[in-house]
Parts: sequence; C-alpha cells; structure tokens
Amino acid sequence: MLDRRVALRLEAIRRLMRKGAVANLRRIVEKTHPADLAAIFGELNDLEQGRLFQILSSCGLAGEVMSHLEANTLQQLMASLSDDEMAGILSAMESDDAADLLSLLPEERQGGVLAAMTHEDSQDIGSLLRYPEDSAGGIMTPSFFALGQAVSVHDAIDAIQGAEAAETVFYVYVVDDEERLVGVVSLRQLITSAPSTSLRQVMNSDVISVAAAEDQEQVARLVAKYDLLAIPVVETEGRLVGIITVDDVIDVLREEATEDVYKMVGTSQEELLYGNQVLPIARLRLPWLVVNLFGGVLTGTILWYFRATVEEIIALLSFLPVITGMGGNVGTQSSSILVRAFATGRVEFADLPSHLWKEMRVGLLLGVVCGVLVGAAAFVWHRNPALGVVVGVSMTAAMTVAATMGTLAPAFFRRLDIDPAVASGPFVSTANDITGILIYLGTASMLLRFLPHVQ
Amino acid sequence: MLDRRVALRLEAIRRLMRKGAVANLRRIVEKTHPADLAAIFGELNDLEQGRLFQILSSCGLAGEVMSHLEANTLQQLMASLSDDEMAGILSAMESDDAADLLSLLPEERQGGVLAAMTHEDSQDIGSLLRYPEDSAGGIMTPSFFALGQAVSVHDAIDAIQGAEAAETVFYVYVVDDEERLVGVVSLRQLITSAPSTSLRQVMNSDVISVAAAEDQEQVARLVAKYDLLAIPVVETEGRLVGIITVDDVIDVLREEATEDVYKMVGTSQEELLYGNQVLPIARLRLPWLVVNLFGGVLTGTILWYFRATVEEIIALLSFLPVITGMGGNVGTQSSSILVRAFATGRVEFADLPSHLWKEMRVGLLLGVVCGVLVGAAAFVWHRNPALGVVVGVSMTAAMTVAATMGTLAPAFFRRLDIDPAVASGPFVSTANDITGILIYLGTASMLLRFLPHVQ
Repeated sequence: MLDRRVALRLEAIRRLMRKGAVANLRRIVEKTHPADLAAIFGELNDLEQGRLFQILSSCGLAGEVMSHLEANTLQQLMASLSDDEMAGILSAMESDDAADLLSLLPEERQGGVLAAMTHEDSQDIGSLLRYPEDSAGGIMTPSFFALGQAVSVHDAIDAIQGAEAAETVFYVYVVDDEERLVGVVSLRQLITSAPSTSLRQVMNSDVISVAAAEDQEQVARLVAKYDLLAIPVVETEGRLVGIITVDDVIDVLREEATEDVYKMVGTSQEELLYGNQVLPIARLRLPWLVVNLFGGVLTGTILWYFRATVEEIIALLSFLPVITGMGGNVGTQSSSILVRAFATGRVEFADLPSHLWKEMRVGLLLGVVCGVLVGAAAFVWHRNPALGVVVGVSMTAAMTVAATMGTLAPAFFRRLDIDPAVASGPFVSTANDITGILIYLGTASMLLRFLPHVQ
Repeated sequence: MLDRRVALRLEAIRRLMRKGAVANLRRIVEKTHPADLAAIFGELNDLEQGRLFQILSSCGLAGEVMSHLEANTLQQLMASLSDDEMAGILSAMESDDAADLLSLLPEERQGGVLAAMTHEDSQDIGSLLRYPEDSAGGIMTPSFFALGQAVSVHDAIDAIQGAEAAETVFYVYVVDDEERLVGVVSLRQLITSAPSTSLRQVMNSDVISVAAAEDQEQVARLVAKYDLLAIPVVETEGRLVGIITVDDVIDVLREEATEDVYKMVGTSQEELLYGNQVLPIARLRLPWLVVNLFGGVLTGTILWYFRATVEEIIALLSFLPVITGMGGNVGTQSSSILVRAFATGRVEFADLPSHLWKEMRVGLLLGVVCGVLVGAAAFVWHRNPALGVVVGVSMTAAMTVAATMGTLAPAFFRRLDIDPAVASGPFVSTANDITGILIYLGTASMLLRFLPHVQ
C-alpha cells in the first residue's frame, strides 16, 4: 500500500512511461526518495519494472533502490540480472549494503558476481561475507571515519569535508598507530571545540564497542541502551574494522522482532521471500506442524488409554477441551513472555530461578481461579460434586504445570543454543495438551471410586 | 544481569559506600553512563538505593538515570519521592523525558508535581502531556533547532555552537516567518557547504515530517523507511512543534514489539511495572483467560451434544486432540503473521483479499498433507477405512477453516480499531477448537451409517 504522495508519483511515472518522456522520467526519479521508488517499483507490472529499472540504472540509483525492495520483488529482479550487471550495481554501492544484496543470491552465483568486479571492490565485499550474516561483522560497514590522536579539531573538520566516501559521519573515531580504537568524538563536540585542540584532548576514551563476532541482537541492545548513532566494531586486540549505524540497528530490531513472531508459530521469516507463492510457504510451515501432529496423535493415544474412564463417566468429555485449551493458553503466555524477555535482555540465565518462581505462582493463582470457576460449572451442570472436584483440581494442576513448562521450555532450548522462540507456540501447546489430559484423566480414574456414575 | 564491566563498577560503588567515601563515589558516578548507573541501581537493596540516589541527585544525574530504570524499580522510587523532589528532578531534564516520567505517576499526583515547578517548565511538560502517550506528540521533544531561510551557513554553525539546550542537533530545520517547516539541512551538509550560502540555498525542501496526532508506530515506520536520525513533528498548517530523535524511535520499536507479544498471549506490557509481584500480574492475565474459559466450556458443550456419537465410536476420541490442536496451530500461524504484517505496514487493508487467498490455500495444502497423514494413521491404528476418511477429511477442513479464521480475526479486530494482536493466540485457539470439533464430530455423525462399529 502506498501513501497518497507516493501513489501520485507512481501515476506520474506510469503516465510518463506511456508517453516515452525519458528526460522527464529521469527528473522525477531523481527527486524521489529511493525508499519510495522501491515501493513504486513493487506496484509495477513486469514490463514497467523493466523500463523503470533501465532508468534507475542510468541514474546510478539501481543499487540504492534495490536495498529498499521487498524481499520477494528483489529476488525476482536479481534472478533476471546477469553477473556483470549485478557486479556493476554492487560496485557503486556502500559495501555493507552490497554484501547484503550479494548474500541473497544463491551461493553458486556469488562467486561469479564477485569475479566480475574490480579486485578492490570484491575484496571489500568478500571480506564482509566472511562474517555470519547476523553478527556485528555481517551488518557493519567498513567505511568509517578514523583519525589519529594528534590530529587537531580544525584538521578533523577539514577531513570530514573532504570525505565523500564515508557513509555518514556521526562520530570521529580516534585510533592509535596500530589502528586500535582509543577514543571517540561526536560531530557536535567537534563543532563546539576550539579548532587548535587535539582529538586526544576532546575525545571520550570510554568507547562502547562490539566484537565483530558479536550477535546482532546484542549490538541492537547496546545501541538502544546507550542511545548511540553508530557503534564501532573491533577485531582481536581492539583493531577498528567497521561501524554499524543506527539505521541498520533499526532494521535489525524490526527483523528480529519479525523473526521471533515467525519462529514462535513454528515457521520462518524466509516466507517473506516467497510473496504469495503457496507451495514454498507451506513447505516452511510443514515440518514443525508434522512434529506437532505426532504430538497430537500421542495425546490421542493417551486419551485412548483412558477410554474406559471416559466411557464410564461420559461427562468427563465435556471438560476435556477447556482443560487442554487453558493449559495451552497459560503455557503460551509464560513461554512468549520469556522469549521476549530473552530477546530484549530483560531476563538472563541468572534471573531464571526468580522468574520461574514468579511464573509458577502466577500459574497457580490463575489455576485456582479458573479451577474454582470451571469446577463450579461442572458441579452445577452435571449435578455431581465429585466431578466438580476432579475438574477443578485438574484445571488448577494443569495450569500450574503449563506455566512451569512454558517457562522451562524456552530456557532449555536456549541452553541448547536453539532459538528459544521455537519453544513457544505449537510446541508448548502440544506438550500441555499431553500433561493436561494426563492430569485430568489420571485424577478422574484415581477418584473413580468416589464418583457416582453420571449422565 | 550486568556485564562484567558494570558488575565491577557495582562492586566499587558498594565498597565506597561502606567506606563512606562520598567524594570518590561522586567521581565514579560521574564517569559511569546513566544507563549503567540505572542497571546498578536495580541491583542495590533499598538502603543502598537511597544512598546512591542521594549522590545522583547531588550530581544532577537523578533524572537521566531514572529515564533508564526498569519500570518496576522506577515506580517504587517515584512513589517514595515527594512532589517537590519530583518537580526538581523533572525541571532539570529534557521536557520529553520529563513528560514520560510524569505520565507514569498516578494522575492525582501529576498536578501536584506540575504545580511545584516554575510556570515555564510546567507549561513545557504539561503541553506534551496533552498528546496521547503513543502519538508523535507524546514522544516528541519540543527542544529542536530551527532557523530562518535567510540565515547563512556560517551563522547556523555559530548558532549550533551556542545551543546548549537543543537535545541533540542532527539536522537544522528551516522555518518561515510563521514557524512553518519549509526545509531541512543535515549537519554534514552544513559543514561541507560554503559559509556564506544561505540555508535556503542548501536546504532540502522535500522534508519528511509527521503530524503530532500520528501514531508512534507510523513514526517508527517512516524513520526506518527513510533512515532518518530525527523526524520533525508538525501541527496544523505545518507549524513545527517538535522533533522525535532516532533513539526514541528505537525505544518505540522495542516497546511495540514487546507490547504485541504480550497482547498476542492475552495480557499487557503493564506486567513489567510489577516485577515479580504475582497478584497484579495474575489480575492482568485473568480477564482474557476467563473469556477463553467460557469458550472452552462452550467447546465442551458441543462435545457433550455429540456424546452419543463418541460413545458409539469411541475410536473417534483418539483423534480429538490432534484435530483441535492442529487447528489451533495453523490458526495461530496465520493470525500471528498477519498481526506482525500489520505492525510493520507490510500488509494493509487493500492487500487483505490476496493475503487471505494465500493463507487459505496454504491452510488447505497443509490440511491435505496432515489430513492424509493422520487419516492413514487412523486407518492403520483402528483398521477402519471409514474412520480414516472421517479423520482425514475433518483435519483438512479444520485446518483450512483455521487458516481462514486466523486471517479474518485480526483483520476484523483492526477494522473495529481494537489492536489486532488481541485476536491472535488464545482467541484464535479457542475459536478453532470449536470449529474443529464441529467439523470432526459433525462429519462423523453424518457418516455414521457408513462406519462399522469399532473398538
């Protein structure tokens, strides 16, 4: 969906295309923000996309617009470009953005594209590809602005004015002779300092930085916590190798939150690559569903095992859905809350015991309230006090267990270095179906002798 | 959890406190980042907190550290401060941060605190409180840096050097005589332009801005889309009234993602105010659970209505959990994905028909695969082909319906201006329990005559 401003521009572009007014097209393209051009591109049909792409290429905007395209539109476009064309586009881009695009290509094409570039460009981009995609190294740009400690404020400002290459200069980083990061000066400090002072005098030497191997979520947490515009990335021995700017951190935050939602329901963000293609999307969702299918059949087997109990007291049937359902709800509450707390860094392993203890007590309290309500309902409905007790007690127990398992499952997955988000949603629901039925029908068959037959 | 660097500082602070070395304490506090001080504060006991707070106040750091405190620690601290003390702290802060803190106080205290401030401060902060908390106006700061169009680049740089008050100068906004926003100049453009040019000549007049009433999620989307460091906020007729800086946008993104997770499982972010207090947390989670409790009992009533069918073919029992469970899983997948797509702006109302059509086909495809698997299992297990058909067909139908409802529910809620996140999770699970059982036992009782009795 486009907002009105962009929609108007889309219309203008279509009109100019039909007229073949190339010069006007170039003018309108040049004064439109690349993010808006990307949105417009996504609305065009194949032929129009080809024509717009031609204009973008000739204006040198192709790369920047591609960085803003939706994943599935981008995939299609890149598949239709030759290695040479891709190489030309990537060479004109910031190397971190170029590496991002390149990493979306199938591996067998990456080599071809890199080979079609100049040695220097392919070195720059290739070195970024060495880092895992979701590490600090994988999202950093190697074009930063660093100066020596002895440089004066005046010379530093001069240097910034000459630095066309540096992506965006937010801070001037100060390095020693071995390129080790020793300090930082903000642009504002620079402007407000006397021109003759040296950077050593004005710099803040307590620099917050990240290691290149650090996870991108940790990078986002640091930038959020310390309100930074950019964070320097260092390699072994503190050598400055790149920076991560706040706009990339925003992308990380959005992406991680989206990824967590997808994982929590047992699928993957990869879905976004496929637009409205049903087959690959179903293939992504299927494995986890099949796991839960087995879980469901296992639950059914347990139910089958208790069939004599159910046949004897058919009224038990009427509370089966509420007990498994509520267990699933409470379990998903506990697990989703912990997954999010892990993601934001609010809860760490050291905090787990107190967090677990809280969730257990919350689960028990909720279980008691719901147990009393549903137990009373059972009593009134079937006029059977024993049934009321079985239903009420089982509900309380099932919900307490569900809250406990909902907390332990993500913690356990994280300990195994599996994304804890996977342990929320379907997994917890299925596990709680099993324990809920075991508790409910176990209690019922134990108390069977006190239960006068109902129906 | 503290990282090692902060943990060491915590230890040092505790040691100095025990020694009563106030001068040293002040020194260490002054060179520690407010975010770290907040983390340290959260680890201290009540008495230590009181002592540290004293030091922070005397260093003028109380407000800044409070802005970084965890919600529950902050609540406790603010409850123990007098209105006069709060007024003093807030007056020393940026007015947007001050308004944020003030809005956390109970309404009956807010007036008292404002009354204890100077007229000017209370005006500034009070005017921010007029805007809804989650609107652009609610998160903006009114201290921005704006100059006239005729001002020269040289004078603009001079003005920035003199501007201690402006929170952080990322851009110089250019306004006309009626304070209407007409252009923007980045700090970098300023440094790299000839000193004698006027702002009118260097400014970009295609400024991206937001209305004060705009939702904060939309603000975050714009800043993310256009990679901005700050976005100007305008009132009627384009009058510039404030800016929102990227660090606040990061907070919005994190907060909204957290809020969505909490809402998806039927509770609220308000939980974070209560730390480990069980009672208020349970109170937040209870209402939605009770709604689902009724849903669960309703599901049970439907099951009860079909009890004769179940008694006749007790083998039906063994596939009840898998059919309701899988419906819940598929429904939650569809709903969570749509909720996230709404939140990021990837899907709008206009895109709904194609999105729904995709989800329905994905649901059908997944349903066919799972239906065949579970139908085969039913056939093999109970040696009953008719049962296999009933189970397989019901599973396929239930999963297709679940995907459809999982998409329609959030869309419907959003149309009613209720947060669509509420329509994910428990609500969708319960609704799908009901349709799953209706489909399963409805199919079974219709086909009953073809089903030889099993068991």
